[in-house]
Formats: sequence, structure tokens, C-alpha cells
Amino acid sequence: MASSLLTRQLAISLQQNLRLAAPGSRYVSKTATKTVSEFEYDAPSMKTAVPGPKSQELLRQLGEIQNVGAVHFFCNYEESRGNYLVDVDGNRMLDVYTQISSIPIGYNHPALIKVMTNPNNVSAFVNRPALGILPPENFPDKLFESLLSIAPSGMSRVQTMACGSCSNENAFKSMFIWYRNKERGYASPSEQEVGTCMINQKPGCFVLSCLAATHSKAIHKLDIPSFDWPIAPFPKLQYPLEEFVRENAQEEARCLEEVEDLIVKWRQKGRPVAGIVIEPIQAEGGDNHASPDFFSKLRNIARKHGCAFHVDEVQTGGGTTGKFWAHEHWGLDDPADVVSFSKKLLTGGYYHRDELQPDKPYRIFNTWMGDPSKNLFLLEVLNVIRRENLLEEVTRSGKALLQGLYALQTQYPHILSRARGQGTFCAIDACNDATRDSIMLKARNKGLFMGSCGEKTIRFRPALVFKEYHVHQLLNILNDILAEHK
Amino acid sequence: MASSLLTRQLAISLQQNLRLAAPGSRYVSKTATKTVSEFEYDAPSMKTAVPGPKSQELLRQLGEIQNVGAVHFFCNYEESRGNYLVDVDGNRMLDVYTQISSIPIGYNHPALIKVMTNPNNVSAFVNRPALGILPPENFPDKLFESLLSIAPSGMSRVQTMACGSCSNENAFKSMFIWYRNKERGYASPSEQEVGTCMINQKPGCFVLSCLAATHSKAIHKLDIPSFDWPIAPFPKLQYPLEEFVRENAQEEARCLEEVEDLIVKWRQKGRPVAGIVIEPIQAEGGDNHASPDFFSKLRNIARKHGCAFHVDEVQTGGGTTGKFWAHEHWGLDDPADVVSFSKKLLTGGYYHRDELQPDKPYRIFNTWMGDPSKNLFLLEVLNVIRRENLLEEVTRSGKALLQGLYALQTQYPHILSRARGQGTFCAIDACNDATRDSIMLKARNKGLFMGSCGEKTIRFRPALVFKEYHVHQLLNILNDILAEHK
Repeated sequence: MASSLLTRQLAISLQQNLRLAAPGSRYVSKTATKTVSEFEYDAPSMKTAVPGPKSQELLRQLGEIQNVGAVHFFCNYEESRGNYLVDVDGNRMLDVYTQISSIPIGYNHPALIKVMTNPNNVSAFVNRPALGILPPENFPDKLFESLLSIAPSGMSRVQTMACGSCSNENAFKSMFIWYRNKERGYASPSEQEVGTCMINQKPGCFVLSCLAATHSKAIHKLDIPSFDWPIAPFPKLQYPLEEFVRENAQEEARCLEEVEDLIVKWRQKGRPVAGIVIEPIQAEGGDNHASPDFFSKLRNIARKHGCAFHVDEVQTGGGTTGKFWAHEHWGLDDPADVVSFSKKLLTGGYYHRDELQPDKPYRIFNTWMGDPSKNLFLLEVLNVIRRENLLEEVTRSGKALLQGLYALQTQYPHILSRARGQGTFCAIDACNDATRDSIMLKARNKGLFMGSCGEKTIRFRPALVFKEYHVHQLLNILNDILAEHK
Repeated sequence: MASSLLTRQLAISLQQNLRLAAPGSRYVSKTATKTVSEFEYDAPSMKTAVPGPKSQELLRQLGEIQNVGAVHFFCNYEESRGNYLVDVDGNRMLDVYTQISSIPIGYNHPALIKVMTNPNNVSAFVNRPALGILPPENFPDKLFESLLSIAPSGMSRVQTMACGSCSNENAFKSMFIWYRNKERGYASPSEQEVGTCMINQKPGCFVLSCLAATHSKAIHKLDIPSFDWPIAPFPKLQYPLEEFVRENAQEEARCLEEVEDLIVKWRQKGRPVAGIVIEPIQAEGGDNHASPDFFSKLRNIARKHGCAFHVDEVQTGGGTTGKFWAHEHWGLDDPADVVSFSKKLLTGGYYHRDELQPDKPYRIFNTWMGDPSKNLFLLEVLNVIRRENLLEEVTRSGKALLQGLYALQTQYPHILSRARGQGTFCAIDACNDATRDSIMLKARNKGLFMGSCGEKTIRFRPALVFKEYHVHQLLNILNDILAEHK
């Protein structure tokens, strides 16, 4: 039953090779703005509290296999459409979290279903290659058409990976290899270096550092061995940014000074910093923004000290800030040496400048090195973004969303503060974590599914097909909850 | 043109929902053994040297984007079938490397194409969920039917991951969490621990060690920061094992003694060993085997010292040794605390005993945590393995292959030695790396594609559909090359 709608859609797509008519899905009422796709539902529709009885039964079953403490509910992905996520109890929610920001153009987009039903693509799904040794015929073409067509400024090279953590890990490796080669004057490594690296010792495993200006939650890190790498503070700004220009500039100057101090100190300790890693908006850490001026100066510090500059766009990339890459907002010609991605790009990976390409094969290597079937989906996502002008849509919706959040925090200053955002990549703080959690649960039961980050922040991560029409739905639900909030 | 065959196949599959008739593929001659599927080609067929002109042109193109030093040639996956990999120049090779051992039932298996064309599965491909927070309705069912139906002895829990390195990394994390919880007496972590882990310092980031009994090549490790973890020697045995029982038992005893010494020494240094990691056959390191007695004693050492015992089955798992898990050959009731997998399982992940489940959510977490579409393929692979009795086939083919390798090394003792294997997971050493590489290149040009490992080893990693018929093709080609070898 659950899959009947999709089955019919697939049959239509296969037989007629037409855009889907989505039989059975509800049409938008005449009064709604016509920018809403006919493919989508028109509003949330709730049947039970969430998680409902079916989700609870499935939670019990999955609990026999895994820790399910993080599971919100179980989903009926077949019935989900565009911005609306349907759960197994038949609840339809406006989804502004989108699988931790990883659904680029909404659920079951007809264009993606067509990718699946194109016979030319079948082989890419059933024969996953070891891309590093035996790439498929169309691999260079598909890379040029997809990832390289959106390459950040100054970057002509890209390496795919299976997920976000592999992407960052291998990007770090590239930076270390680059840095050591530079230090060695591009000579071959010594026999001693080759020998010692096999037993995890110096000088083969040189003690380098990666200055990471981003970190997430303790629960992810407790008890796990970690590298002793320096961590610099990310600026803690006041919002709206334009009202606190002077204060924020001071805070950014303080952080930049500390970054440079750390680089110098660690070099003196005999542990030079090979690279600086930064998110354009520090996401998991609580949606912290910084000015283009800050990033420009940080990039210059990296250059001055010979460190690689790695911009982690895993969460910010893919159009959600209104530009394809969030770092484009900085307006720099040479914004980075490495840019990593995943999530909305559907494949993980990283771009890098020519100099960061490893000089030898197998230095960056694993069995799969990505998945070409994900590149096929990405290519179609990019087509949809261009065809439907989704970056403009994001800018428009984002403006409406941020204005709405400003209005809410003005109306409920004891509950909400620090509304901030770029495109639809928005966030707002609650007065404390209990209030934040309570608002989120109430919203979910009214058909609005949001995410959290940092200590008391609500984050908005809608798909790129999130339109002003959906913004108003979101704000109406939030307003209802806040009005009832004691 | 390249995809025409598959297009027709797909059309047939869709319209008639029948097993594929593979129009256009060559049928096995009447004289060939009838165990060869009609779906497959009957023999290699070479048109150019490899890489041919089309591969060379594509290498040039891809070289503008990536280091292509490890790329052998470009493949036409649409035209590849079963054990035969077809390249872009129309060369058809018997593939006994199978994408670094990651193609379980051969190329374009009709059963996998049916998974693609089943409308109920479309949603799993186009809506990749964040499995840790919003799993699909059928997720527990599919886990029970696929991964849990093949769970190693004593293991009822499984965590999927996107690739092999994420699988091992998160398995390590589970062991560290388990070990520290045990040390803490299962009390909550202190505030100091929570605080310090965020800055990568003690005691939050406790200095634990993972005794890694496996390592690969220097090129993967040079210049990359690594944990200062103890590494124990893997036994270097003499082959055939049954002819060197006494000598090998001594070597294994030496290694076991060293493992225990390391555990004691590192504990005295204040760095207790949380876990021991071992491959049942040390693969990348040169296909090194050890006896069931060795593994049984190593497992006891882990138990005695309170270390978790992690069996890395990324390369050995999935049936290639004649049992689904290579560690089943040890005959132990309680063989491991953690078993990791990837490659032939199509999804990465790891099984673990109940005690190793993290007590809190988000301790093992990332955005995707696997990919449910891969579970669908795995389920079908398991069906095929059972239906076609592929483990028996592997045992039969493996025996023929190993006997053939013994015969070759007897005939060419100045070139080949140390033939060894379990199931079709076989290897043989050349007299030096140059000879090994030369044999492999000549074999490729005659239509036999093999892999290498260690310093001078040829490794055989055919798919599970590799039959005695294919063994004889392989041996004939090798024999021709060795006869010509100066």
C-alpha cells in the first residue's frame, strides 16, 4: 500500500517517459501561490502524535539491533513529496531539516526518478567500480558535467569519496602530503621516513598539526582517541550582524589574533600547522556566522604561514545559502586550497588546487572512492537547480524566513533571540535548551519538523525547493506554538 | 552503442519480469561444462594491448582532474558479464580481481538488475535517509533479512556504514567507548572528561591503544599523522601449511608471545590496550595466513587482558573463503566481539556483541550511516548465494585453483613459490616484484586480470560465481606466460 503511489508513478515514467503527473497526490488549492509544484502536497496533515504507534513498534524492533536513542520516527519515503516528509503513521510534516540537510531538491523529485528508470544508468547502480583503478567509460565526462561544472574558483581538480567524514579525512591527508613535500623540497622521502611511517613513528609519520576552527558535541568525542591538534575559537558574534558591526569586528580580530598566535606557538614546539580547516558557517557548533572580512583575513594568515586553507562546505555547500558555495559570499578570487563537500551533493569529495594533487598514485586511495551512481543523481540535481532557478528561490525564501524570524523574536523576546541566516540556512536561539526542545516537539506534532544545533539553537535546513509559500506555513506553526507557550 | 545490450535486457526485465535472456551475449559452446551460466561469455577476447587507445585517451582526460597513476584501464561496465570485465577498447578479460574483491556475484547479474527495476525499490535509491535519525519503514525488516541472517556467531547487533574505512573507524570507536565505560564502572563521565574531550585532551580523550595486527603499504601512510598505537607482528608462515606444521607453530607462538608482551608493556606505560584488530587472512600485507589455533589463542589473550577482539572481515568476508565469514574456519563459539565488513557485502558496517553497544545515542553517528539501497542489493546477493549454492562452488573452484597453483610452482620453481589459499581467496609469490609485475601485465594482455599485494605476491579475488571452468582458463593463460618466461 505504502508504495502504490510511487509504483504508479514509475510505471508512467517508464511507459511514457514523461514528467510525472503524480496521481493521487493532493493538488495545491487555487488560492495558493502558483510557484508551488503540482507534484507536491499543499500542507502538513497530522493523524497521531509523533512518534505514532507504528513508529513506536518499529523503534522497539530496531532497538534489538541498534541504539535507537537518536531516532525521531520511521518514515514512509514512498509517500513523501517535495518539502513534505510522511511518517509510517501517515503524518505529513513540512520538513525543514531534510535528513540533516542532505536532500537537495525534496523527496521523490520526478527528475531523480527518471535517472533511476533510464536504462543507460542501470549498470552504474549494479556494478559499483573501484574508481581509483577501473573507472567507467563515462567517468571523466560525468565529472566534468557534474562536479567540475560547479567547481569553486581556482579549483580544477576533484576527488570523490563515499561520505562526508571520508571527504574531510582525505582532504586532510592531501594537505599533509602537500605540506611535507614542500618542506622536503619535493625530494623523495628518505628510507628512514618510509620505514618509520609503517610503525606510526617519526619521521615518516611527521608530527604535523591541523588547526581546526570547528568542533561539534562532546557526545561524539568522549573516550575516542584524537589527534592533539590546536583548536582556534570561532567568532561568537552578535546578531543581526549589521547592528553590531563594531563589536563583531573586535571579536573577529580577537579570534584572528589567536589563530596566528597558535600557528607561531605550535611551530616553535616543532609541530608546524599544515592546514587550517574552517566552515563558512559553523553548523553543528550552533550556526555561528562570520564576516567576509574575517574569512579573507584568515585566508591571508594561512597564505602568510604556508598553511593550506581548507573550507569545509559539507553542510553549507549545494546552494542552501543562495550561492552554490557559501564561501562565494566572501567575494575572493582565491578563496581556498581545498573545499570539501557531501550531503546535498549526494556524493562526498573535495576539490583542490593543482599543487595539492598527490605526486604519486595510491597516496589518496580506498576501494570505492565514491559511487558513480551518486554522480548521476547529482548531475540531474544540478539540471533542476538551473532549470528552476533554485538559487534565486533560496535567496527569496531565505529573506522571507529571516524576516519572519526577526518578527517572532521581536514579538517573543523572552523566548527567542539571535535570529540569523544566509539564504535558507537560518537559525534562531531559544532562551534555554529545555524551551528549544519543547518548541521543537510541539512543532513536530503540528506538522513542522526542524533540527537543532549547538546548546539551544533551532536550525532550518530546508531543501532548495522550499518556497515562500512554505515559509509562511512554517512561521504560522511557530507563531501558534509561541502564542501558547507559557 | 555501449549500453545497447543492457538497455534491451532492462526492457525485457521490465516488460516481462523474467530472468534475463541476455540477447547478444555469446553462448557457451556445447563442449564447455554446463555449470557456466548462459548469461555469461565463454572466454576472454582481446582486441588491443591494455590499456588500448580509448583507455589512453580517457586517462589523459581524467589526468586533468585526478592523479591517474593507479588506473589500469577504463571499463565498459554495460558489456561486462559475470566473471568477464570488458574494457572501452572491446577487450574482454577474465577478472579475478573484481574491483578489489568487491563484486560478489559477477557483473550485471540478472538478479541485481531486477532489484533496480522493482518499483518498490525506487524510493530507497532517490531518497537517501539519515538512517540514525529517520530510518525507512522497512529498515528493521531489511536488516533482519539481510545482514542479521548472516550474523557471525554470538552477534545480534549490526551498524551499517558507507564504506570499509568508516566501518573500521566506528568499530574502533565502539571498542574505546566500551573499554572506558568498563573502566569507569559504567558511571557517567565526569564534567572534566566532557570538557577536555572537546579540546582533544586527557582525560576526556583518554590515551588508549588499539593493538593493530595489520598494516599495508608505506605509500598509504607516509606523511599522514597517525596514532601511536602498538603493532604486533602477523605470523610469517611457510606454505603449504600442512608441510610445515612444526615450524609454523613456533612462528605463531613467537607472535602470540609478542602480543601479550605489548599489552603488558603498554599497560605499564599507562596506555592500556582497548582492543586487538586482526584480519583472518592478512590481505593487503601479502595474503598471510595463520592457523585456527593461532586465532583461538589470540582471542583468549584478548579475553584474559580485557581487550575487545575485532575481526576485520572487510576483504575476507562474503563467502570468498568457502564460508561466509573467514573466521568460521576457526571453529570457535565466541570468535569475536566485533566483526567489520564492506566490499562484497556492498554496504560497509560492523557487527558487535550486546555489551559493545554504546549506552547513549549519537556516540556512533554520522549523516548517512550507510545506504539502504545497498542493503537491497545485498539481500538479493544472499538469495543468489543460497539458491546457487555458491559457497560450495567457491570451495570446489578454490580447491582446483590451489591445486593448479601448486602444479605451476612445481613446474616453475625458479619463478613461483608459496602458493596458498582458502576457498578462492588464493595467492602465489613471484621471485621478485619485477617478475610479478611482468607476469601480471602479460596475463592482462592475454585476457586475465589479476591483483597484487605485499611485495611480490599475485592475489586472486574472483567473484563467487567463479567456477572450475574459469579456473582452467586462468591456469592455461598463466601456464602459457610462464612457459614463455625467460
